[in-house]
Amino acid sequence: MAAKIPPLLYADTERSADALYFGRVGVPDPFIAFGLRGKKYAVVSALEFGRVRKTSDFDVVLPLEKYLQRARELWPQRKPAAAEVIYLLAKDFRQTRFVVPEDFPAGVFDKLYELGLDVSVADGALFPEREIKTPREAAAIREGNRLSALGFAAAERILRASKIRGRALLHRGQTVTSEMLKFAIEVAILEAGGVSANTIVAGGDQACDPHERGAGPLRPHELIIVDIFPRVTATGYHGDMTRTFLRGRASDAQKKLVAAVRAAQLGAIKMIRTRVNGRAVHLQCVETFKSHGFETKHTAQGSVGFFHGTGHGLGLAVHEPPRMSPTIDYPLKKGSVVTVEPGLYYPGLGGCRIEDVVQVTAARPKLLSDYHYTWEL
Amino acid sequence: MAAKIPPLLYADTERSADALYFGRVGVPDPFIAFGLRGKKYAVVSALEFGRVRKTSDFDVVLPLEKYLQRARELWPQRKPAAAEVIYLLAKDFRQTRFVVPEDFPAGVFDKLYELGLDVSVADGALFPEREIKTPREAAAIREGNRLSALGFAAAERILRASKIRGRALLHRGQTVTSEMLKFAIEVAILEAGGVSANTIVAGGDQACDPHERGAGPLRPHELIIVDIFPRVTATGYHGDMTRTFLRGRASDAQKKLVAAVRAAQLGAIKMIRTRVNGRAVHLQCVETFKSHGFETKHTAQGSVGFFHGTGHGLGLAVHEPPRMSPTIDYPLKKGSVVTVEPGLYYPGLGGCRIEDVVQVTAARPKLLSDYHYTWEL
Repeated sequence: MAAKIPPLLYADTERSADALYFGRVGVPDPFIAFGLRGKKYAVVSALEFGRVRKTSDFDVVLPLEKYLQRARELWPQRKPAAAEVIYLLAKDFRQTRFVVPEDFPAGVFDKLYELGLDVSVADGALFPEREIKTPREAAAIREGNRLSALGFAAAERILRASKIRGRALLHRGQTVTSEMLKFAIEVAILEAGGVSANTIVAGGDQACDPHERGAGPLRPHELIIVDIFPRVTATGYHGDMTRTFLRGRASDAQKKLVAAVRAAQLGAIKMIRTRVNGRAVHLQCVETFKSHGFETKHTAQGSVGFFHGTGHGLGLAVHEPPRMSPTIDYPLKKGSVVTVEPGLYYPGLGGCRIEDVVQVTAARPKLLSDYHYTWEL
Repeated sequence: MAAKIPPLLYADTERSADALYFGRVGVPDPFIAFGLRGKKYAVVSALEFGRVRKTSDFDVVLPLEKYLQRARELWPQRKPAAAEVIYLLAKDFRQTRFVVPEDFPAGVFDKLYELGLDVSVADGALFPEREIKTPREAAAIREGNRLSALGFAAAERILRASKIRGRALLHRGQTVTSEMLKFAIEVAILEAGGVSANTIVAGGDQACDPHERGAGPLRPHELIIVDIFPRVTATGYHGDMTRTFLRGRASDAQKKLVAAVRAAQLGAIKMIRTRVNGRAVHLQCVETFKSHGFETKHTAQGSVGFFHGTGHGLGLAVHEPPRMSPTIDYPLKKGSVVTVEPGLYYPGLGGCRIEDVVQVTAARPKLLSDYHYTWEL
């Protein structure tokens, strides 16, 4: 490795997990941050100054207004912004080379190039160490999954208490809908210190589009996918778990579907350990599905079967490295945290996905999620 | 204007309001979208294909996997991703020039340049028309503010029902905290069809850091800033309103502070109309504060007084153009929607901010937010 090029960020911490990882403080508007000679620097407006100084991991917090003022004096004809401030900082600190993350804004990147700075895009992650979770980070993810589990409990409670009336489910006289379950889930998670946005509660054929969030009445005897990926407010770390429920009586075909998904998941978890390739884990799920008689097909109208990756890294972002998918050749590392979430989707029959979270070790992976697998309610 | 260069996006709709504006469909992972000869194109994975085809504004939805496969055949030594797919699309459509938004990922931008495409960054907004809100968009923002108002009502209910016991507020025997109020606010908003993240409920000196979200017990006789900016789930549009409350008895100094903020806000609203400069609106707030005897000071420990902008555009993003601030010389446009939120912050005395939302017209602005201004509860 060459001498380490200092990292440079310009992002808000809602959109950039790197920025949150680097400074350990939530900042809702984009701000400049960089590392230099072992110290972490942030440049923030008066609006953020006091709070960032008090509560962050930054060693030095600089006032944005001062630099904007200098930039206005230097370029009276321009409307100076982030790039001009970064240029001034580079001059002050005699550091003209920086490395930025892939999602660094192209507008700033392009201007820095024009201003003559030598800024390159990181090849892969800006902070590769983010992939390896410390015990503290694993605990924060476990807490996220505890919130997911509270969500399942809230949904399950309503489904169990609901009455089957023809094609409808009734709970306290009201039609049970995706929205009703999502509300119960999200309130349970809010109450426990997290936020769950975009929760998926999708029944029947809706569940066959894995990113369909679900809407309208839920039917008895249909598979209902519930996917909950909350963010823990105190830490910013996420949980991510999925269970598939059915209120009423499952058909033999539904039972076979669910059994195949659970078998694929157990097979994948058993296989995961340091240095095993994520693609191999995925391909084993594909084989399990084939051996259970479930084929995957891609048509002009969409796909059926198993057509998403087996898992992804989880942490400050819901989706982060590593991925376990057919196209990514990547050996798992000790300490990585990944979801394991095979699924099968057949319009007419329905969809099933079961998702847990594990931390990779040299032996059996550590399970960081905990909720039962009873699904026929 | 030269012939319009086609827009190109690579973003998810959680992070990019442009992407949501363009396609009118929520997509949680980054995807390629572009406009060409009056048609809107999206390239999405099998995971999103069916849903995006069914529910979006895209005229043509293309399967990502097909292009990735072609890219792998063309560059067997690379790990093809977004840039390679965009390159293939550019060849297929014989279109090598594109314009991207400022927040387009630098990693993709840099690779496209290497691949020989002529991609430039938009000077300002990619879709300047996003700034001008249609009646339908204004109604969606009004709905967002209706959710904010439900939040205030929930907070106010608890504060009014709470008992003053020395330095504590008690509600049904429990200490009233920022967290308790935020929970009540967020549940009320969830129930009404929105999500309110990062809600601010900050009392006393906490409120003097305008982005401090607030934590711990709320005190009687202290100013409490409540800033609620929910997203309406069905449309993606936001509300953004702030009220400042006090449970108990306000001091004369607190009354003067609140009166000055409301006076500044009313003065600003009165002044807002087509072609008035946002900076002039801001400077008038500064003058109002001076005439009420409130000075702004910047020190090494932070700032006191009025040290943020008077307002910002609101829509699919909480913060979007135009800005009304001391450094931005920008005439307001008819149809723009802006917040009007002057504030004053003095540790020891406390903070006050009052925020409403208006749509710019040629005459009096249209108020898109509605909640009363009674603050001493």
